[in-house]
Amino acid sequence: MTGAGTNHTIPSLMGGPAIILVRPQLAVNIGMCARAMANFGLSDLRLVNPREGWPRTGALRKGAYAAAAGAVHLLEQARLFASLEEAVADLNGTFATTARERGQLKPVLAADTAMAEAASRFSSGERLGILFGPERTGLANEEVALADKIVSFPVNPAYASLNLAQAVLLVGYEWMKAAHGAAPPFQPAERSPAAPREMILSFFDYLEGELARVGFFRPLAKRPVMQNNLRNMFHRMNMSEQDVSSFRGMIVRLVEGPRADRPKKKSQPPSDDKG
Amino acid sequence: MTGAGTNHTIPSLMGGPAIILVRPQLAVNIGMCARAMANFGLSDLRLVNPREGWPRTGALRKGAYAAAAGAVHLLEQARLFASLEEAVADLNGTFATTARERGQLKPVLAADTAMAEAASRFSSGERLGILFGPERTGLANEEVALADKIVSFPVNPAYASLNLAQAVLLVGYEWMKAAHGAAPPFQPAERSPAAPREMILSFFDYLEGELARVGFFRPLAKRPVMQNNLRNMFHRMNMSEQDVSSFRGMIVRLVEGPRADRPKKKSQPPSDDKG
Repeated sequence: MTGAGTNHTIPSLMGGPAIILVRPQLAVNIGMCARAMANFGLSDLRLVNPREGWPRTGALRKGAYAAAAGAVHLLEQARLFASLEEAVADLNGTFATTARERGQLKPVLAADTAMAEAASRFSSGERLGILFGPERTGLANEEVALADKIVSFPVNPAYASLNLAQAVLLVGYEWMKAAHGAAPPFQPAERSPAAPREMILSFFDYLEGELARVGFFRPLAKRPVMQNNLRNMFHRMNMSEQDVSSFRGMIVRLVEGPRADRPKKKSQPPSDDKG
Repeated sequence: MTGAGTNHTIPSLMGGPAIILVRPQLAVNIGMCARAMANFGLSDLRLVNPREGWPRTGALRKGAYAAAAGAVHLLEQARLFASLEEAVADLNGTFATTARERGQLKPVLAADTAMAEAASRFSSGERLGILFGPERTGLANEEVALADKIVSFPVNPAYASLNLAQAVLLVGYEWMKAAHGAAPPFQPAERSPAAPREMILSFFDYLEGELARVGFFRPLAKRPVMQNNLRNMFHRMNMSEQDVSSFRGMIVRLVEGPRADRPKKKSQPPSDDKG
């Protein structure tokens, strides 16, 4: 039915909990939810009585498909249900998203905790669904009662105004983190190996020698403190071999002045060399 | 200038890192970013050369203000800068959001790690900013170079299509979790105290006695196993005192049959009592 819980061998991110939009008001919002889902590898979209009707046909198609921004395959695969009971019939567990307390004795979980639980249950074969209510009103109490647990989001109490697609986005994001790891999608650019301490100390010796030569350390009694401060600044850079080479080259150039093989600029006095 | 780092005594959520939109293309997206910020207690919005101009005036005002959905105070307070350098001049630290590797030797942090660091630095008085590039292209490499660190989001590699307001929403959400705690905004409905074990065992004794009386335990040798299974089912309910009372009342009613003081239904044989 859903494909959830079965496609563990496909490397492309698929499956995960069903996203169940209950009585969504606007087709364009259904498209935006599809886009949010696709970003985080969710693929099972279910619609219960969308107010504007089925967004795959007629005039609604255009707005919903534009909002889906390339995630139209989720709209194509989405399933329409006449009741929430039918939409959750094949699921083992359901979470209801709500923005306010509902007077129902269910566990209330933050989205990260809920999706950590969902990822664990999903990986042991359970089929799960997350319920989202209509834009203006949220889920009705009897719809919340159909769920095992409540999911909510920490928001600014003075301004709590998450819209439907934003709520789907946050659930998808926490699902992604819990199910597929929270690492960023790329690593820093390849850097040269970390410099061995010997290389760094050799650079310090050279630099401090040149600084002493030009009278940088004044008063002389302060040289040890000044040197330590300088060395600590460099240590904070966590230099690679390439970094040390670049820095050393820079100091050499400053000390020795313009390269002989480079045409000297007019404005530069030729006797500026210090070395 | 920003108010960031100073308003620790005001309970309403304010301050936090500046959200810096660099060359945003559409005024309506600026409004959606303001809405995302307000949800998570961010209030310092900075615009660098918005393509459509300043969204507080003229025809742009309508779309931006509608999209802000009540967070218009952030648009009113937003500041406009002619260059990114000016926009970050008063900040101590900056994070650049990017969706792809930039060949720059900066730390790449997931949004949660970055906002944990930001919350820690903010609470020790640092002023921070998060850079977001234009909708279509993202930040230019020289703009990324102005930042200390890179922030990115774990996304489905087959469909990475976070829009500007979605990226601001995720950063704001992680900021909220890191700076103000990840607890959901409300707790479960007040429930009666957890039932003491004595009360539960007394209920088990009653229930199991009644079940034995009506011949539920068949074959008799299986009674201990059946009882254990039943007890474990009830233990999983983690019953409150009220729960035990309700359950006991339910069993009593089933055992004793219709209340004498309730008018009996026509279709119900009066001799159905088992007790």
